[in-house]
Amino acid sequence: MAHIYYNSWLERYKFPFGAVQEGKRVDFWISVPSELETNVYFVVRKEGSSIGKISFPMTAAEEDRYHYQYKLDQGSGLYFYYFKVVQFCSDGSKRTLFYGFDGQGGEGKIEHQESEVASYQLTCFEKAEIAPSWYREAVFYQIFPDRFANGNPHKEVNQPKKNSFIYATEEDEPMYIRNKQDEVVRWDFYGGNLKGITKNIPYLLELGITALYLNPIFEATSNHRYDTNDYFKIDPVLGTEEDFVEMLAALHEAGISVVLDGVFSHVGKNSRYFNQAGFYGQDSGAARTIDSPYYPWFKFDKYPTNYQAWWGVADLPEVDKDNKDFQEFIYGDYDSVLAKWTSLGVDGWRLDVADELTDEFIGGIRKHLLGYQDKILIGEVWEDASNKIAYDQRRRYVFGDHLQGVMNYPLRQQILDILNQTRSFDKISKEMVSYQENYPEDFYYNQLNNIGTHDTERILSMLGDSVEKLAHSWGLLFMMPGIPCVYYGDEAGLTGGKDPENRKFFPWKNQNEAIYTPCHTWIQRRKKHSSMKFGEFFPFYSSENEIFGIVRYDEEEYTVYLLNVSNKPHKIRIEELVSPRQYRGDYQILESLIEEIEVGPQQDYFAFESLID
Amino acid sequence: MAHIYYNSWLERYKFPFGAVQEGKRVDFWISVPSELETNVYFVVRKEGSSIGKISFPMTAAEEDRYHYQYKLDQGSGLYFYYFKVVQFCSDGSKRTLFYGFDGQGGEGKIEHQESEVASYQLTCFEKAEIAPSWYREAVFYQIFPDRFANGNPHKEVNQPKKNSFIYATEEDEPMYIRNKQDEVVRWDFYGGNLKGITKNIPYLLELGITALYLNPIFEATSNHRYDTNDYFKIDPVLGTEEDFVEMLAALHEAGISVVLDGVFSHVGKNSRYFNQAGFYGQDSGAARTIDSPYYPWFKFDKYPTNYQAWWGVADLPEVDKDNKDFQEFIYGDYDSVLAKWTSLGVDGWRLDVADELTDEFIGGIRKHLLGYQDKILIGEVWEDASNKIAYDQRRRYVFGDHLQGVMNYPLRQQILDILNQTRSFDKISKEMVSYQENYPEDFYYNQLNNIGTHDTERILSMLGDSVEKLAHSWGLLFMMPGIPCVYYGDEAGLTGGKDPENRKFFPWKNQNEAIYTPCHTWIQRRKKHSSMKFGEFFPFYSSENEIFGIVRYDEEEYTVYLLNVSNKPHKIRIEELVSPRQYRGDYQILESLIEEIEVGPQQDYFAFESLID
Repeated sequence: MAHIYYNSWLERYKFPFGAVQEGKRVDFWISVPSELETNVYFVVRKEGSSIGKISFPMTAAEEDRYHYQYKLDQGSGLYFYYFKVVQFCSDGSKRTLFYGFDGQGGEGKIEHQESEVASYQLTCFEKAEIAPSWYREAVFYQIFPDRFANGNPHKEVNQPKKNSFIYATEEDEPMYIRNKQDEVVRWDFYGGNLKGITKNIPYLLELGITALYLNPIFEATSNHRYDTNDYFKIDPVLGTEEDFVEMLAALHEAGISVVLDGVFSHVGKNSRYFNQAGFYGQDSGAARTIDSPYYPWFKFDKYPTNYQAWWGVADLPEVDKDNKDFQEFIYGDYDSVLAKWTSLGVDGWRLDVADELTDEFIGGIRKHLLGYQDKILIGEVWEDASNKIAYDQRRRYVFGDHLQGVMNYPLRQQILDILNQTRSFDKISKEMVSYQENYPEDFYYNQLNNIGTHDTERILSMLGDSVEKLAHSWGLLFMMPGIPCVYYGDEAGLTGGKDPENRKFFPWKNQNEAIYTPCHTWIQRRKKHSSMKFGEFFPFYSSENEIFGIVRYDEEEYTVYLLNVSNKPHKIRIEELVSPRQYRGDYQILESLIEEIEVGPQQDYFAFESLID
Repeated sequence: MAHIYYNSWLERYKFPFGAVQEGKRVDFWISVPSELETNVYFVVRKEGSSIGKISFPMTAAEEDRYHYQYKLDQGSGLYFYYFKVVQFCSDGSKRTLFYGFDGQGGEGKIEHQESEVASYQLTCFEKAEIAPSWYREAVFYQIFPDRFANGNPHKEVNQPKKNSFIYATEEDEPMYIRNKQDEVVRWDFYGGNLKGITKNIPYLLELGITALYLNPIFEATSNHRYDTNDYFKIDPVLGTEEDFVEMLAALHEAGISVVLDGVFSHVGKNSRYFNQAGFYGQDSGAARTIDSPYYPWFKFDKYPTNYQAWWGVADLPEVDKDNKDFQEFIYGDYDSVLAKWTSLGVDGWRLDVADELTDEFIGGIRKHLLGYQDKILIGEVWEDASNKIAYDQRRRYVFGDHLQGVMNYPLRQQILDILNQTRSFDKISKEMVSYQENYPEDFYYNQLNNIGTHDTERILSMLGDSVEKLAHSWGLLFMMPGIPCVYYGDEAGLTGGKDPENRKFFPWKNQNEAIYTPCHTWIQRRKKHSSMKFGEFFPFYSSENEIFGIVRYDEEEYTVYLLNVSNKPHKIRIEELVSPRQYRGDYQILESLIEEIEVGPQQDYFAFESLID
C-alpha cells in the first residue's frame, strides 16, 4: 500500500504543471503498485458547479501507473480532485483507499476514509493575463510620499493641514500622536512631496528604477492618505495637480512608469462624500444630509452617528461597492476617478484591500483599464489569491479579466525564514512551488514582489541589522519570478519595526553605501538577465538546510543563485541538492555553473551562462 | 464688652497705615468702653527675636481709648501684636479678654483665652524699595516667545530641535504630546522668535506698551524653556544672540524696556550642566562624570540616576543654591549669567519660583543688579509675599535689598470674583487692603499686576467669553496700584483653559477689535493719569454687592472707576458706598465725581478730575 504515489509537481504525474486554462486537458497519473486486481478513480468536482463530484475510472498505463486525461470543461474556477483506489483481495473482500492533498502540495497522502481525504486544487483560468512588457521588465520602487523627499527650495511644507504636526527635522523618529484612548489626535507630516520625487529622478535612474508604486496621493486627512477626502484632488501637502502632471511627464521622460494606490473600499470620515465635521460645507455630504448625492453610498445603522466602517474604524466609513453610482464614480467611462488619473498618464493601479471590494467592482475597474494601452492592475491580497475566501465568497482574482497580479507578501516571510533559518528549506521551497502551482503562470509572473512595504517592519531590522543578510535578501528578491519592488530607503539603510517606525524619512544625509551597492548590483543584474525576469523558476536546497538556491533559465541563458547560510565553507555537490519540483532544464549547464563551487560561510554565489554566442 | 474695638486699617486706631520702616514709631489706640477699672496692654513680639513677647501697658487717652506708641526697634521683619484687656469688677474678681486678628484684617475679634487669640501682622522693612521710574510708569506686555510672532520672511522656523514637532499653522490648537504614562515625549513649537518681536514693535507701540516681560529665552528643550540647557545662549529656535541684541536695541529705541525670566532653581536634565543624554558631549556634565565642574551643583541620592529635582520632576534637576560656584555662575561680578545679559541691556529680571531660591541667593542677585542703573528685580510668589514661609523658613522678600516686587497673582482672582460675583465685595476689598497693609508701600506699588499669565486660564474664558466683562477686567487691572501687565493675546481675543490652551499663538489674522479697543483705551488712560500710577488707593462697594469701585488720587487729580455688576441701572448714592479702609481723600471731590451718576446694568463708569488748572 505504501507505494501508492502521486505528486502534482512532477510531470510524470501531472501534466502540465500548475494552473490550466479552461477547456484544456490535463493528464494525471498515479502509481499503484499491487498484485491485486485494482480499480483506480480520478475523483473531481468543480467548485460552484451543479454537477457535483464525479469519479472517472483511470486506465492502467505503463508499469504500475494509472492514467486519466481530464478536460476542464466546467469553466474557470477551482477544481478539486483526489484519487480513489479499490483493491479486490483473493478472499473476495475489497479495500478502498484515498490519495489526496497533504497540506503542502506536491506529494500527497493516503487516507482510509473518504471523509478524511483532502483535495488537490487545480486552478482553471479563463484567460492568460499577459502583462504589459514595461511591467514585466520593471524594477519597482515604492514611495510613501510624505517620507521620500521635499522638493521645495527651502524644504517648506506645502499647505500644511490645520491641526497637524510637522516634524522638526527629516531625521526625527516618526511617531503617532495619540490620546489616552489610543486614538490618533493629530497627524504628523514630514512634508515629502511630488516635487521631491521629480527632483530625485536622477537618484532613481542611478539606482536603476523603472517604475514607481506610490502610496495614496489624493487629498486626505492622514499622512498615509488611505482616508481619501477627495479622489479628484492631489493632496495639497503633496502639491498641486500641476506638480503631479509635471512629475508624471518627467518620470515618463526618464522611462519610469507610475502605479497609484487605489483606495476604493472606504473614504475618510471628513471626506467631501461623508463630511462628518463639515469641512466641505455645512450642508453637504452623507453624514450631514440625507439629501446628499453621496448618502446612498454609505450604510448607516443609525443616522448619522452609526455607520459601517472599515474594520469598525470610525475614521473610515465604508462605501457600498454595489452602489451603481459609486461604481460609476470610480470607474465609469467619463469623469470617473479612474478615467481622470489614467488619462493623465498613470500606468496602473494597485487596489488597496482588494478583499473588501466585490468581484464585480474589481472586474469593472479592469474593464475600464482595458480601454487604455498597457495599463496594469494589481491587488493587495496577503495570502494565496487563487483560493482566497473573503466574506464567505471565493474570490476570482486569478481567473482572468480581474486582477493581473497581487502584491507578493508571503515572499518576504519566505526570504526572512531562509536568511534567519526559522523554517526548513524544504517547507519554504514547497510553499514557493505551491504558489507557483496555484497561480496561473502569467499571474504568478505578474506578482509585485517585496521584502518590505509600509505595512511591514523594515527588512534590515528583521535581519538583525546584518548588512550581509540584507544583500542576500536582495539576491533572493531579484531572483524570484515576479516584479521586484524596493521599499524606499531599504537601499539606504533605514531600520525600524512596524508602523510608524517603518515610515522614517529617506536618510538623504546618511545613506549607507554598503547597503546601496548590492541593491544597485542586483538591479543591474535583473535588467541584464532576461532569465531573471522571464525564465523558468526552480528553488533547490541541501537537506542539511545549509544551501538554498534558485535557478532561472530561458532560451537565452541560465542564472543561478546560491546561499550558504551555514558558518562553514561549503563545496557544492549537485547530488546533495533537492527541489520539490522536477528540474526541467539542462542539468549539465546547471552542473557546470555550480558543481564544486566553494561558497564561504554566510556567503552567496551568483553565476550565469548565456546560451547565445 | 461688645464695644472693645480696634481696626488696623483706620488711622484712628493705628497710625501710620500699613508696613513701617525699622526704627520708626507706630501709634496704636484701642476702644475699651467700660465703667470698670481697666488695664489695657499692647502685646507684641518680633518674629525671630530672642526678646520674646512683651506686654506694654497702654495709657488711657481721650474718650474710651487707650494708646501706646511702639518703636520698631528690633530690626526689620514681622512683628505680631494683639491687645490684652484686664477688667477689675467691684467684687474683686477680674476678667481678662484678648483682642486680635480675625483672619481678614482691619477689625479684629475678642477671645477669652490667650491661646486662642491671633496676632495682627505688622511688617517692618529695612529700606524703601523705590523702583526705577520706567518701571513704575510702565505698561507691561508678557510674551511667551514661541507663541507671539515669527519674524522670518516665510515664517520658517529657526533651527527646529531634533525630535520636536512644529505646528502646521499658527491657528492650530496647542497640545501636549504625551505617552501613556502622561510624560511629554516630544515638544511642540509654533516657531515664534525674537525677530517676530522686533518686527511687531509698531504693534506694541500702537497698543501703548512700554515694557516687555519675556518668558525664558535661553537654550532649552521645551517650548516654555523653564528647563534651561545653556544660560549663555539664546535658544536657536528663537534666534541668535545677534537677533537678541538687535531686538533689545530696537525695543529700547522705541522706549520699551525688557524684563527676562530668570530660572535659577533648576536646569534641564539635558543641559550643558547635567547632560543626562550626552547632547553636550559624552564625557561632560554632572550626570556623566563626577569630575564635571558642575557635579557639585546637584544633589544625587544615587549617582547618576537618582537626584533631587524640582517637585520631583526628573526633567528638571535642582541646583544647590548654597553652592558658591553656582552663585558665582549666576550673579558673580564677571562672566556671570546676570552680568552677561544685564550688561547687554536687559532692564530687569523676574525670578522664577522665588520660593525655591534662598534669601541669600536672591539677595546676591539683587546686590549684583544694584551695580547697574535702573534695573528691576521681581519674583514669582503666588501668595502674600510678606509672610510667606517656604521650606519652614519665613522669607524676607519684602524687607529690602531683596525683591523689589512680586507678580500679583491674587489680583486676578479678586477681579474674577468681582466680575463673576463669586465672592462678596466686602471680602474682596478686605483682601485687597490686607495686601496693601502687609506690603511696604513701595513694594506694594511695585507689584506686577496681571489678569492672566502662561500659568493661568485665559481671562476671557474665565469670564464666560463676555467681551463686556473683559473690558471691565481691564478697568480693574489698570485702576489698581502696581504695574499692569497684559498677557499677549488677551487684548486680541485669545481664549482657553489651563496650559496648553492658554498658550495659543497670537491670532494675527483674527484680532478682535471689540476686545482690543477697551484695552487700548485703558492703557492710554493709565499713561495719562498720574493718579492711576502713583495715587492713593481705596476700594469701595455697595453692601448689596452691586457696585464695586476704586478711587485713586494724588496731588494732581482724582480718578474713579465704578462697576455696576447688577442687572438693573443703579444711581450712585455716596452714602451707600463703604470701604474697609478709611477714605483719606477729599470727600467732596469724590462726591462730585460719582454722586447721582447713573450706571447702567453691567456697565462701568470712569471719571477724573484734575486738581491742576
